[in-house]
This record gives sequence, C-alpha cells and structure tokens, in this order.
Amino acid sequence: MNLRPVGPRTRLTLSDRDARRPPAFGDRDAVKSLLAREVERLGHLQERLIASKARALLVVLQGRDASGKDGVIRTVFDGCNPLGVRVTSFGVPTELERSHDFLWRIHAAVPPRGYIGIFNRSHYEDVLVVRVRRLAPRRVWSARYAQINDFERMLSLNGVTILKFFLHVSREEQRERFIDRLHDPEENWKFRAGDLEDRKLWSAYTRAYRDALRKCSTPWAPWYVVPADSKTVRNYLITRVINETLSGLRLRFPRLAPEVRRLRVD
Amino acid sequence: MNLRPVGPRTRLTLSDRDARRPPAFGDRDAVKSLLAREVERLGHLQERLIASKARALLVVLQGRDASGKDGVIRTVFDGCNPLGVRVTSFGVPTELERSHDFLWRIHAAVPPRGYIGIFNRSHYEDVLVVRVRRLAPRRVWSARYAQINDFERMLSLNGVTILKFFLHVSREEQRERFIDRLHDPEENWKFRAGDLEDRKLWSAYTRAYRDALRKCSTPWAPWYVVPADSKTVRNYLITRVINETLSGLRLRFPRLAPEVRRLRVD
Repeated sequence: MNLRPVGPRTRLTLSDRDARRPPAFGDRDAVKSLLAREVERLGHLQERLIASKARALLVVLQGRDASGKDGVIRTVFDGCNPLGVRVTSFGVPTELERSHDFLWRIHAAVPPRGYIGIFNRSHYEDVLVVRVRRLAPRRVWSARYAQINDFERMLSLNGVTILKFFLHVSREEQRERFIDRLHDPEENWKFRAGDLEDRKLWSAYTRAYRDALRKCSTPWAPWYVVPADSKTVRNYLITRVINETLSGLRLRFPRLAPEVRRLRVD
Repeated sequence: MNLRPVGPRTRLTLSDRDARRPPAFGDRDAVKSLLAREVERLGHLQERLIASKARALLVVLQGRDASGKDGVIRTVFDGCNPLGVRVTSFGVPTELERSHDFLWRIHAAVPPRGYIGIFNRSHYEDVLVVRVRRLAPRRVWSARYAQINDFERMLSLNGVTILKFFLHVSREEQRERFIDRLHDPEENWKFRAGDLEDRKLWSAYTRAYRDALRKCSTPWAPWYVVPADSKTVRNYLITRVINETLSGLRLRFPRLAPEVRRLRVD
C-alpha cells in the first residue's frame, strides 16, 4: 500500500478510523523490515541529492500533539548523512518574526540545493492554530491559502521539491500517548497544559486541517494524510513517498573531468 | 585511553606517527563495540541537553582534506535526535560574508541552548587557509587568535560548551584516501584539484595548525588532537570526549509541576 496525495476527490473525513493501522499491513515484523529497507534506501538516494546539487527536498510535517513528528524525524532520516539534513522546528513566533509577514521565517529556513529540509510544524500553523484560536481575523488567515500555494509554487520552480505529511492520529491514541508522557519522568517535560486545551478543540482543528489539506494540496506541493496510530506503518509510508519522489528525480553523481580523474597523488 | 586537551606543555609535532592508531587500542572489534556504546550514550545525554535547555554544545571539526570530518558527523551523532542537531559546513566565504568581519557568519550559526551544533570547518579557516595561501596579510590573521579566544569565551559564558577537534591524518593515509576517492564513481565528485594543491602545502598547513591549536586551546574551548588514521579509533575518542563533557554538565530532565502531572486526560 502506498499513500496517494490529497486530490479534489479525496475523502477527508479525518475520522478516528482513518488513523488506524491499515488492514493491508499484516505482520508487524514484516513492516519493520520493509521500513528498515526504505530507510537505508533513503540514505543512498540522499547521497545523490548531495552530490548532484540539483534540487532540495523539503519535507513538511504537521499533526496534532503526540502524533509523532519527532519520531518521524528520528526514524525516517536515520540512514541519512546529517551533514545534508536541516531540521527547523517552528514554535510560537518571536517578536521579530511577528513583525514580518508570516512566510518570512519560513523562507529563511528553506533548504538550499543538495539538502533535505525538515519542517517540524510550518507555515501551516498560520492557518491552523491561528484560525482555531482566533489569533488573527478570518479575512487574514483565509487569504493565506492562496499565498501559501503561490509561495510553494515559486519554491518548486526554483529547485525545491516539496512533500507535506499530515500525521493523522486518533483521539483515543493521543489520549494514551499523553498519559504515557505524563507518567514517564524522561518524557513529561514535553507535556504542556496547552496540549490539553488543543485536545478540547479537536473538531475545530479537524476542520482547519481539512481546509488546509484540501486547499493546499497541489501538483507542486502535495499533501499526504498518514495513518499515524501505528508508528512503524506511519514511518514506512512516509519514507516510501520520499523515496519514490527522490528516485523520480533521477539524480546522478556528477562525473569528474577526465583530466582530474587521471591526476597523480604523490 | 582518553584524549587530553592541548595544553602549554603538549608536544605538538603533528607528525605522521601521531596520526596512527595508538597502540593502546588492540582488537578492532573491541573498539567497534566500545564506540557503539558511546554513540548510544551520547544519544541519551543529548535527550537531557534538549530537555534541560540549559546549555548548547558546539563541536568544531577541523582537519585536512579526507581527514574524516564527514565520517565523524555521520557516525558519532548517529544515536542523536536530528531535531536537536545542527550541522554547518563553512566553505569559501560568499561576497556577503566577506563584507562582514570573519566571525559574523560563525556567530549566526552558533547553536541555541538545547542544541548540538557541529561546525564542519569553522572560523579557524581564517587562520589556516587564509594564512597558508596568503589570502590576508600577516597583521590581519595574526590578530585573529586573540579575537577568537575572546569570542569563544563570550560564548562559553553565555551557555555554549565548546569542544574542538583536529582530525590528524598522516600524509600516507591521505594519499590512500585520495586514490580511493578518485577511483570510486560515487565518491569522486568530492575530489577537487585544489585538494592536491593543499597537499603540496603540507608543512605550511602543519605550522598553521600548530599555532592555531597552541594559541587557541583554552579552558573554555579546548582543542583535542585526534589520531585519525583509524576511523573507528577517531570516532571513539571524539565521542568519548563529548560524553565526558556532557555528563560533567549534570543536565537534568525538568520536573513537571505537580498540578500538571495530576491533570486528567479525557
């Protein structure tokens, strides 16, 4: 089973059921070994990305609290050379950031050619939390979908390949992960009282995600809904999309000029 | 065997012999398993670094071409969460960078608290290549050692723990690695004709490194000379210094307020 990008006809209920481990994935160990193979393959594909310096890859990760954004970053890119990976976590904007347009801090973090950039949250917060918590009036956030599409198209025309993943976790699974976090002394610092407030706004967030995914899944920057209740399946599906995309770019190792290849090393 | 920082009485011949695998390291597999343990330990220590947000760690890697800077980045930090790791590779300065002081681009890349920053080359190029290739007059580069020490002290007083490693590879080992590179179609794009020119300037670089290490190994930002002919030993020794340093910081997971720990998740 491979993920397909959100399209005009995608059913976007984002119900709890859609977050579950898809039945197509049988044996747990089998998925694990498929994942290991894809993670290794991503490492090889990344070497070509670095060497050819032809494109950048931008991976946008969005999802509710505890949906596994950190886990994806940790696992999916485990075979990659950190030299060519840049993670940017977008939190509450600073005063300086708020004094600019909402894409200013995003643009500054876009990966250069040869790099994989990973956005842990992104400009989509400006149509998600900003909308749900009414941090800006409707006329402001509702104009942003088109601005985002224009911005992403410009990037893709200038060497950036964009993939966007919504980690779709169910309400029940989030509850269990929150409880685990609260009880693990090495994990509970990740917990914020605000996480519970966002949980109470579950449906409002669902509506906001639905609009963002529908309005901003484009041929140049597709959105994928990833069933994220199972961590292994989530990681596998994401790695697979990334690998298919990178492999479709047909990146090659540059050939060294023959006169250099013949150089003698004394 | 543990590395000791360069001190006023350190013998700094930087001869080929010092680059070899130290005899204290016997069995190859034994070192590999020691390394694996340290790499895993670094992952755990990094969790505390992230959680406590008390300090940043800055790891500076310097060394001749093919001394293994990329390999260190790939192996040593393999157990780390990429979310908290930032690698910056410093190449030939851009026009914008050259229009600033030499520490401007360095300062911008210093890791914030909670992060591990890795510098693949650094401000030390400004007293190495700049000196050897006469890219600036002596009065300019010779004034930089003190400027670097002041800058690094300021950082360390403001939450940045600094460790600097010179990957010391022998002339013979570099030769073999260059030849390997030239013959590997997936590696030879890394090769630059300039690498051979630098190789011809071997002794001039040795002198420049010697001065940099001697003048800029300080209690707040020590230099370590890493014997780098053996990759495993090199990686092990570096990881060990990092771990001892991080563990000496006594970083703790923050405790969640009791009223938060008692929150109910509905």
